[in-house]
Amino acid sequence: MIILLHLDAGPAERAAVRAALQKLGLEVEEARLGERTAFWVEGADLPPESVARLPGVEKVVPLGGRAPLVESTRVPGGRPVRVGGACFGGGQVAVIAGPCTVEEPAALREVARFVAQAGAAALRGGVFKVRTSPHNYQGGGASALRDLAAAAHETGLPFFTELSDPRQVAEVADVADGLQIGARHMQNFPLLIEAARAGKPLLLKRHMSADVDEWLLAVEYVLKAGNEQVILCERGLRSAEKHVRYLLDIGVVPWLKQRIGLPVIVDPSHSAGDWRLVGPLARAAVAAGADGLIIEVHHRPETTRCDAQQALPFADFARLMHDVRALAALDGRGLAGAQPSTPPPLQRAAGA
Amino acid sequence: MIILLHLDAGPAERAAVRAALQKLGLEVEEARLGERTAFWVEGADLPPESVARLPGVEKVVPLGGRAPLVESTRVPGGRPVRVGGACFGGGQVAVIAGPCTVEEPAALREVARFVAQAGAAALRGGVFKVRTSPHNYQGGGASALRDLAAAAHETGLPFFTELSDPRQVAEVADVADGLQIGARHMQNFPLLIEAARAGKPLLLKRHMSADVDEWLLAVEYVLKAGNEQVILCERGLRSAEKHVRYLLDIGVVPWLKQRIGLPVIVDPSHSAGDWRLVGPLARAAVAAGADGLIIEVHHRPETTRCDAQQALPFADFARLMHDVRALAALDGRGLAGAQPSTPPPLQRAAGA
Amino acid sequence: MIILLHLDAGPAERAAVRAALQKLGLEVEEARLGERTAFWVEGADLPPESVARLPGVEKVVPLGGRAPLVESTRVPGGRPVRVGGACFGGGQVAVIAGPCTVEEPAALREVARFVAQAGAAALRGGVFKVRTSPHNYQGGGASALRDLAAAAHETGLPFFTELSDPRQVAEVADVADGLQIGARHMQNFPLLIEAARAGKPLLLKRHMSADVDEWLLAVEYVLKAGNEQVILCERGLRSAEKHVRYLLDIGVVPWLKQRIGLPVIVDPSHSAGDWRLVGPLARAAVAAGADGLIIEVHHRPETTRCDAQQALPFADFARLMHDVRALAALDGRGLAGAQPSTPPPLQRAAGA
Amino acid sequence: MIILLHLDAGPAERAAVRAALQKLGLEVEEARLGERTAFWVEGADLPPESVARLPGVEKVVPLGGRAPLVESTRVPGGRPVRVGGACFGGGQVAVIAGPCTVEEPAALREVARFVAQAGAAALRGGVFKVRTSPHNYQGGGASALRDLAAAAHETGLPFFTELSDPRQVAEVADVADGLQIGARHMQNFPLLIEAARAGKPLLLKRHMSADVDEWLLAVEYVLKAGNEQVILCERGLRSAEKHVRYLLDIGVVPWLKQRIGLPVIVDPSHSAGDWRLVGPLARAAVAAGADGLIIEVHHRPETTRCDAQQALPFADFARLMHDVRALAALDGRGLAGAQPSTPPPLQRAAGA
Repeated sequence: MIILLHLDAGPAERAAVRAALQKLGLEVEEARLGERTAFWVEGADLPPESVARLPGVEKVVPLGGRAPLVESTRVPGGRPVRVGGACFGGGQVAVIAGPCTVEEPAALREVARFVAQAGAAALRGGVFKVRTSPHNYQGGGASALRDLAAAAHETGLPFFTELSDPRQVAEVADVADGLQIGARHMQNFPLLIEAARAGKPLLLKRHMSADVDEWLLAVEYVLKAGNEQVILCERGLRSAEKHVRYLLDIGVVPWLKQRIGLPVIVDPSHSAGDWRLVGPLARAAVAAGADGLIIEVHHRPETTRCDAQQALPFADFARLMHDVRALAALDGRGLAGAQPSTPPPLQRAAGA
Repeated sequence: MIILLHLDAGPAERAAVRAALQKLGLEVEEARLGERTAFWVEGADLPPESVARLPGVEKVVPLGGRAPLVESTRVPGGRPVRVGGACFGGGQVAVIAGPCTVEEPAALREVARFVAQAGAAALRGGVFKVRTSPHNYQGGGASALRDLAAAAHETGLPFFTELSDPRQVAEVADVADGLQIGARHMQNFPLLIEAARAGKPLLLKRHMSADVDEWLLAVEYVLKAGNEQVILCERGLRSAEKHVRYLLDIGVVPWLKQRIGLPVIVDPSHSAGDWRLVGPLARAAVAAGADGLIIEVHHRPETTRCDAQQALPFADFARLMHDVRALAALDGRGLAGAQPSTPPPLQRAAGA
Repeated sequence: MIILLHLDAGPAERAAVRAALQKLGLEVEEARLGERTAFWVEGADLPPESVARLPGVEKVVPLGGRAPLVESTRVPGGRPVRVGGACFGGGQVAVIAGPCTVEEPAALREVARFVAQAGAAALRGGVFKVRTSPHNYQGGGASALRDLAAAAHETGLPFFTELSDPRQVAEVADVADGLQIGARHMQNFPLLIEAARAGKPLLLKRHMSADVDEWLLAVEYVLKAGNEQVILCERGLRSAEKHVRYLLDIGVVPWLKQRIGLPVIVDPSHSAGDWRLVGPLARAAVAAGADGLIIEVHHRPETTRCDAQQALPFADFARLMHDVRALAALDGRGLAGAQPSTPPPLQRAAGA
Repeated sequence: MIILLHLDAGPAERAAVRAALQKLGLEVEEARLGERTAFWVEGADLPPESVARLPGVEKVVPLGGRAPLVESTRVPGGRPVRVGGACFGGGQVAVIAGPCTVEEPAALREVARFVAQAGAAALRGGVFKVRTSPHNYQGGGASALRDLAAAAHETGLPFFTELSDPRQVAEVADVADGLQIGARHMQNFPLLIEAARAGKPLLLKRHMSADVDEWLLAVEYVLKAGNEQVILCERGLRSAEKHVRYLLDIGVVPWLKQRIGLPVIVDPSHSAGDWRLVGPLARAAVAAGADGLIIEVHHRPETTRCDAQQALPFADFARLMHDVRALAALDGRGLAGAQPSTPPPLQRAAGA
């Protein structure tokens, strides 16, 4: 940390800052920068705000990342995360797909079979829903979880499901292949720690207003709790603009890929909030280097009780998987866990 | 709900929309608006997104609030919330004050005695801290909670403390007079429900990116769980602007006061993130009609391990309380729970 | 426009609203929606706010777009814009490239020749710079404009340059093939009107905080002034997140392509503010269906006086053009105005 | 500027950075900070981005403000701005009031007389309107300007009016006492320079997405053009939240008052976008230390063609002026240019 004093800080202020730092048990070096005094202190523990409040201090410049465990994942080849037979981050594109909410078992199985055939690497489905209003449908709970596990088992796909209460962790981790932490719970640290300890891979969505620093520190909580199997998922940021529900931060994908080794996937469904935009956003994500996608698919979107506006119908999903395969191939990647499927005809990137 | 069809929607589409609505068990009325067809459906349960996806539908206009329990608090005189001997929302201004984090017992007692004398209505102090980084100080836990209860008891002030894990509720509710839910946990619904059921008053901070609708729906969760003692606390919104840490939504205070009966207070400390701005923001809040304030005060701000930059020193807090009393008096209000204190000399609103 | 009255609006309020509307010379139809009264008024001229203020009115629902001229561009095949020999929006991908600022003539020619060879469809260069600070370099002015025209002429590329003062329009339009309006001037309506009247194609960047409605209304100003040759350019939105300079609204590309017929291009350079992110953002834009790109290229980025951080060096630009060609080919598109160039080896979407 | 090298930057990189800095004609000092090398360079001209791009550089820390002319206004007593007989920033509260748009001369005179009697220091009125849509009313132009001047003259109030085209400056500056630059034109630098040169006081609104740095640099343009009579006006920031039209940055008032000497006023009308919130926001602004207000007042708000939703009716304005006087008195201030008026009865800060 560099502590730069004001140009007019006198010897008394200089001594006081030095004394205050030493009182904290820190080793302090002094340097001259032009006509100013700077102090140099090693160690990230010191809250910069306390130092900034000392009289005579103009600026405090912290150095070094705040998330050393996350930074340590930046190794050659990265740190792929295996979920059942699927691999996230190992140089392929892995697609998680399924309904927003688990509804009828028969319908669920139909969706699961379809996405498996179309090349999905894993199944998703909500059973403990996090709903903005207490008057909205709150999910099917334990019995829906059983249905989801059965559908996943039948198709051979691993599955993810979301949870939001530390007291649910044991029950969910017992059957799910991956635990999903929703955006609103990104900074629910008791939940993160409990989920991390269950030893299953974690899919950690970014909060719709979190900056990257906060997101990586949430990952840091998981790593510190002893679990290195974290998949980061960008799902869009809240903004003043309302034509999309959340503004997809497409730039964060390459930014993260250049800095950390954990897999980074994108959720175009919740970002768009509109099924007509899901395809283009998904293609953009793969072209920008995402390690995967998580996509809501429904056999009859207009009948679902939850997020009907964003669910892709089957035909659109099949077409998208074809596009994803072609895009991934451009830089030598394939679909993780993909079954061969008959390609539908080429799709124009955006039809007027 | 009004469902407006496209100008060119034909009889087939009209029939299909009507049928889809009836299939959901709804009573549908049809009306002509100019050359268009509109359907009218009673009941708030229907997700507007599903309807919007039906072919031929141009626009879905939901009517009626989504938070009926919150709206029902709008009664003459409002719904004041009593916390120990303090009353929030009963036409007075109630100030909660105390350190960010409970540190040494002796220091805590010093702060508690000072804020009590200066006219605070309640004490605050953090023991289970919600910290962005796992490497930061996480609070003093159970023993700090005991110290806080002792300090409150000694001064006769009721106290609030924050919790973030549903498994902590029993322990905290056993001693605290009010339970504080931090901004990051505003949509942690399992926590809200568990805290609501403890039967103690809840101080519910608004998330730094929550819109008012989401905030009121979080309150709705608490009311639905059977607890009507909710104090809403505005603490600033995340924005691109960095001169304050969070942009205080001062307009939400009168907006809420014109619509709901629950008390609304303001946290200028976390909004400003800078003690030099706390006074002006606090005065603005009272002038805008806030029912109270929650303010971080510290006997030696530059030594605290947490949020040093925003803690008010004693002299500034005393001065602020004097200003608050004068502002409240302008519209016939007094300080809730205030002890008389010798007024310091008048302060200029903002010194260059 | 639908004007919905409160459930408890009585006959007097009903009559008053009707009278107020009729006084404005409007034809008013009345309808019953459930137990409520609704009025229906044709015509977009009425300010909804005035109506909303009438006693008894609960909600005003405006219908119909506010930018009818822009909407009328939605025709089969769209409304391509030709700039010199380059075509924007005609089913190909057109890349505008060049330096942020025109500096030395020799350097400029070097950049122009390189981007032409690499397949750019047009040249860009700043001569009247819009700088946040009056103490920053303000551009080379008239002589730089001559240099830019000469470099463009030599390479056979059409060129764009930015202007920000209605009094500059004649001078610039005299030589430039396309007039660029920067983001900060998107709502500088006197400038838009003057530039529109010059009869040259306009490249209209979206303001970093403009919603789509405002952007389209700015385009509407140009169309109303008699100029239909408008290219829309998304360049990122201001947000609280600072890892990219502006958050690229990638979703707006398909959203617009599904609604209007004018070409939509993307500026990854100003969005990223970091040359290492320009490639991935550019690829994402093409994959999402953009009709083109505008990219800052420099022969020695670290020496430029303006936006050094975001300029692509030659090798990276060549590689990007190769990727763009491959991406465009996936949906049957080619590079507009592209010369054949020897392809460099394939590039991984994002290297760790 | 401090240029800090990476921990592992070797002698070659060190020499290269030093050489690059010297090539720019800068004097470079070298210092050791712990195990790192830092360079120290005087002078603000160097673009930090260029330096940041040199290999081996970890961080560039610019020092010193970017707006030295604005900073130089921080003198004891500040730099009050006189507009006609009104004084902004001289320790009193000055209120500008009037209609959004100049409509009928008789109505205008009625408003002018009322606000003058109620204690306004200056009149406002729009004649060259900046409208988001080309299809909206664009203002009354030259004849409205004459009407406005006449009404101002009759009441003895100085007046402000907005302009947005550098070619209008002469015409407007010829009659207006103060020139108003609207939020959308805050970074229209050709306009700022032309308006500055007219020698009249400038009221410069902050753009709804501008950070403080950008705002102060826009002021810097005016000061650099030789005009020191600038009144800064905060009018709210765009945000995702829609209950107010723009989020009033109340914290920027004390932040600026602690740093610069120019007057700072607040526009609660455009921020709120709702007349019921104008009073509380205005009171908050004065309590936070604002030097004045600019408020839209209309004799019959529901009939105006522009911003009907936010105009205060006469009774509300009179009441607000009474509150403002009482609030200002709390810290020893009075109303600038105020005529004595009979006080209406006290108003509750916010009625449920």
